[in-house]
Amino acid sequence: MSEAKNQPTGLSRRGLLGGSAKLAGAAGLVGAMGGGAAGLLPRAQAATAKSGAEVQPGDLDEYYGFSSSGQSGEVRIVGLPSMRELMRIPVFNRCSATGWGRTNESLKIMTENLLPQTKALIEKHGNFLLNGDLHHPHMSFTDGVNDGRYIFANDKANCRVARIRCDVMKTDKIIEIPNASDIHGLRLQKVPRTGYVFANSEHIIPIPNDGKVLDDPKQYWSVYTAIDGDTMTIAWQVLVDGNLDNTDADYEGKYSFSTCYNSERGVTQADMTSAEQDWAVIFNIKRIEEAVKKGDYKEINGVKVVDGRHGSQYTRYIPIANNPHGCNMAPDGIHLAINGKLSPTVTLLDVRRFDDLFDDKIKPRDTVVAEPQLGLGPLHTAFDGKGNAFTTLFLDSQIVKWNIDKALRAYKGEKVDPIVQKLDVQYQPGHNHATNGEAKDADGRWLMSLNKFSKDRFLNVGPLKPENDQLIDISGDEMKVVHDGPSFAEPHDICLVHRSHVNPAEVWKRDDPMWEDARIQAKKDNVKLEEAADVIRDGNKVRVYMHSIAPAFSLDKFEVNEGDEVTVYVTNMDDVVDLTHGFTLVRHGIAMEIGPQATASVTFTADRPGVHWYYCQWFCHALHMEMAGRMIVHPKLA
Amino acid sequence: MSEAKNQPTGLSRRGLLGGSAKLAGAAGLVGAMGGGAAGLLPRAQAATAKSGAEVQPGDLDEYYGFSSSGQSGEVRIVGLPSMRELMRIPVFNRCSATGWGRTNESLKIMTENLLPQTKALIEKHGNFLLNGDLHHPHMSFTDGVNDGRYIFANDKANCRVARIRCDVMKTDKIIEIPNASDIHGLRLQKVPRTGYVFANSEHIIPIPNDGKVLDDPKQYWSVYTAIDGDTMTIAWQVLVDGNLDNTDADYEGKYSFSTCYNSERGVTQADMTSAEQDWAVIFNIKRIEEAVKKGDYKEINGVKVVDGRHGSQYTRYIPIANNPHGCNMAPDGIHLAINGKLSPTVTLLDVRRFDDLFDDKIKPRDTVVAEPQLGLGPLHTAFDGKGNAFTTLFLDSQIVKWNIDKALRAYKGEKVDPIVQKLDVQYQPGHNHATNGEAKDADGRWLMSLNKFSKDRFLNVGPLKPENDQLIDISGDEMKVVHDGPSFAEPHDICLVHRSHVNPAEVWKRDDPMWEDARIQAKKDNVKLEEAADVIRDGNKVRVYMHSIAPAFSLDKFEVNEGDEVTVYVTNMDDVVDLTHGFTLVRHGIAMEIGPQATASVTFTADRPGVHWYYCQWFCHALHMEMAGRMIVHPKLA
Repeated sequence: MSEAKNQPTGLSRRGLLGGSAKLAGAAGLVGAMGGGAAGLLPRAQAATAKSGAEVQPGDLDEYYGFSSSGQSGEVRIVGLPSMRELMRIPVFNRCSATGWGRTNESLKIMTENLLPQTKALIEKHGNFLLNGDLHHPHMSFTDGVNDGRYIFANDKANCRVARIRCDVMKTDKIIEIPNASDIHGLRLQKVPRTGYVFANSEHIIPIPNDGKVLDDPKQYWSVYTAIDGDTMTIAWQVLVDGNLDNTDADYEGKYSFSTCYNSERGVTQADMTSAEQDWAVIFNIKRIEEAVKKGDYKEINGVKVVDGRHGSQYTRYIPIANNPHGCNMAPDGIHLAINGKLSPTVTLLDVRRFDDLFDDKIKPRDTVVAEPQLGLGPLHTAFDGKGNAFTTLFLDSQIVKWNIDKALRAYKGEKVDPIVQKLDVQYQPGHNHATNGEAKDADGRWLMSLNKFSKDRFLNVGPLKPENDQLIDISGDEMKVVHDGPSFAEPHDICLVHRSHVNPAEVWKRDDPMWEDARIQAKKDNVKLEEAADVIRDGNKVRVYMHSIAPAFSLDKFEVNEGDEVTVYVTNMDDVVDLTHGFTLVRHGIAMEIGPQATASVTFTADRPGVHWYYCQWFCHALHMEMAGRMIVHPKLA
Repeated sequence: MSEAKNQPTGLSRRGLLGGSAKLAGAAGLVGAMGGGAAGLLPRAQAATAKSGAEVQPGDLDEYYGFSSSGQSGEVRIVGLPSMRELMRIPVFNRCSATGWGRTNESLKIMTENLLPQTKALIEKHGNFLLNGDLHHPHMSFTDGVNDGRYIFANDKANCRVARIRCDVMKTDKIIEIPNASDIHGLRLQKVPRTGYVFANSEHIIPIPNDGKVLDDPKQYWSVYTAIDGDTMTIAWQVLVDGNLDNTDADYEGKYSFSTCYNSERGVTQADMTSAEQDWAVIFNIKRIEEAVKKGDYKEINGVKVVDGRHGSQYTRYIPIANNPHGCNMAPDGIHLAINGKLSPTVTLLDVRRFDDLFDDKIKPRDTVVAEPQLGLGPLHTAFDGKGNAFTTLFLDSQIVKWNIDKALRAYKGEKVDPIVQKLDVQYQPGHNHATNGEAKDADGRWLMSLNKFSKDRFLNVGPLKPENDQLIDISGDEMKVVHDGPSFAEPHDICLVHRSHVNPAEVWKRDDPMWEDARIQAKKDNVKLEEAADVIRDGNKVRVYMHSIAPAFSLDKFEVNEGDEVTVYVTNMDDVVDLTHGFTLVRHGIAMEIGPQATASVTFTADRPGVHWYYCQWFCHALHMEMAGRMIVHPKLA
């Protein structure tokens, strides 16, 4: 216990930056990030010209941004270039407004594909386990282009992966990944389609992690998971050496890749940063699929786990200067950027050489085709589809624009500087993303820099500051910051897609699978959801069916007994665009959204004898306030 | 059951609009709201000129907006004129990012002042009851001006009122209001200071609501509640006739007022809209205080309830055309606007006449000094401090600007039109608010129109659309819409305050009361929070104390036994602005924010034998990913 007291940061002096970048000591790093002693950097000069990013009232944005929200567990839809938050999609969080995490429909999605142990803990402790974070939302692909079917995203802390339907912009599947510690990086198969969802387990742990192995890091490993995006089941896992960080996939459907920042398999910060080099892991999808087919795997916790540790035919480990972070496939289909983090470099790999690498015709480092020195703390790289790359420099608080072709030539020895421009951002950027930039049709219109600190860029809102998502115009020769976008609680990642790729529905279809259980139950009860105004008693279970047409529910009261288990089904029969209704029950912690033409339901115990009003909480009509009814709860006889 | 089937909307034909506004039938209303058969109105022409509302990168907004978030249970801080969401303050919701609703500090605030029955239900069913909505955030006053101390707000469905400290922008008190059905309107005493927080119970119920009275609406009432804002205890309640809707208070500290839309004390929509007139209720604060002092009250559920029903000396009922909604005191200190909703009028009362009204020298309607016809569906009125009023017309989808003086003259018979301008908004506005508009120093710079429908104004995000908060420049003679602001899930209300009135801290102070329990426990354990790296075992309870300095926790592992009740205390010793740390524990549904110089704690059961990583989830340093440690859980012996 006292060791840590003596050395509170737990840092070794040499561990901070690798051999390739002996640039700053621990104090310097904190200073750089903290902005000096006072903690405030001088405010940047305001842009002098009109931004060109302002969207006039009534005009539509050109791009959808699907933002991770980081720790808040939702996906946010942002419009570009206005940077307005257009919608929140609850995923790994409880949402008071929509009832996500409270309605039967959402609870089924949140719980039905969890691991048995997790289900048992929810049974024991309640559903606080359902609150998680959300990282790395990405849209499904067909032929390397975003196709508007799904968004996939992960809950890092609780090892879950979710799928969001882009027709209704609601989550429809959540699964839990066994054998993984926290799931960090997530990216999708691009070709021929998604296909696989690739998910990195970050920290190394005993596998299985059942208490048989404890404080023996030599027996700790990590897994790389491929999920079938169509069925949302786990196709396979690959056991690997070291912590996995970020991942991506190629444009041929042959390979996927991950960065590893802890090749040392250390469990302290000093150990994790001790080696001069870590690596990128390359996964050979066809070989792994064959291994699964021919039985070369071990089944652990119900999942087929292929051994991809050093020496395996299924993986290759490419040495990279230490603690690499971002892993970004360029839209040219050729170049994979591995971002140095503690090294000032980005390492560019040519994925066309991976066939030879797996056939042992070349050595791992022979796949490197460029390694430009860019600045301090390169974390992620985005692309404009015109041959340029844009790398975030965390420590320098900059975006560096560099030319891929010049970087290739420089690596070959030509005296050419690949760096085109360095642009200050405010402050400490993490991920960055370009419009359509993860796809073949990257169009180089806008870049977003997701900055981890905002400090003085917004009105002071107390000790907790927003992050700062800055919008950068990259359409010209010179990058320009045109908008500062405050963002809540550590968003990580965003996927920017042209609006032509996204085409959601305006109202629900009555045959939507979302409320299939309600449909089945109503049939059993001989109730038609669309016309319902029925109370069905079934022992101490009571099912209340109503429908709504603005501004009224079909039932203006129902009666139950104290202790009854009550399920209320509401069907919104309005079919007008934007005419959402709600159902809220006073003093019961119950509120839910019922979209136009949708059905939603909630189950609760009638614990409180007396009169309790329910009402529509989604403003629907001039008589919205009067859209209400009474639940009358008869007290138990003493 | 079958009655409702035959008449699914439950509406009587005549009930829809009162006698004073026979303007639309049910079908017409739905059509007006839904925008016609196709559900889409033609898109408004984009503003032609530059807005003047764009805030350049690095420039600060001029006003804080404290937005209700409506159903999502949080307060949002919005910057004006940029309309950017600067921060979310979790209040009546679970927040995955900050751990609100999961940390010991937040759970204490959320639960310690709930009613005993509610505490018992949380004990029984878990904490889903803690999820609620958030309506009507308003900033405390001193001498009629917002003073930057607190924001008060209510959870309508679960009858709670919260206080937010504006120094740290965190909730510090939540109380539950007994004897109330849903708490709708909430406003604050303005003079001499806040003082009282006034909260309306909307629906009528038996009081007490314990099951003795059930389906007998003649015995249903409503209560008006005054909370002491300094102690967050209930000072008194007043029993009243009919549903209370919105409330406000005068600039002399003598009176507060509420609208009532259900003078009929009906329980169906037809009954609630049957009378030609409803009323506004005026509360005589001094008389009520004296009643409490001299014992003229009944104690119900621990609260002193004064009888303010018809005939009482404590209240007056002023007839208003039917179903009035908004209740807005003008900054001139004289005029109170009661908004007609089903009547096309706003009724202006002169509060200086209330002394005579209470002394029975004049009749209730003698307090009316103007009643301009404004248009269909007047809901709320805002003020510019220059003699003009701005009323939302829900059905007409307009803001109408009108001159108070002209309205007074017109009411006296002069041929003068008080209406200055009608401006289309998109679509169906509810609340509106002007900068500093609830206070004496209303400055007439900006107006926000909180529109309940957005329909085609933003990129299509599926069946659930955002609302649309539109920013309107009211500084000139003519109102101009300058920005469309999408807003999630039915926000209700916003309080717009000039930045000169708000002055939050940049980092926490170590002696903050927020973590007093942690301080006391640490002292008992002989641990200094600021230097802690200790594990204290106390039977099967384990207290883990650590501190953090970027990028490390003071403990890189701790060991517990399966089944232990573990409390982790983390103290963030970084004192740099914006340097928040987090503590996340894998597969335990645990994540929390620890602000600079703050302490936070979380308690859980170590249910999962094995190795579980904890890490910082708030990006804090180039080595943030490496800021982690292991919880080792020894399995129970079989």
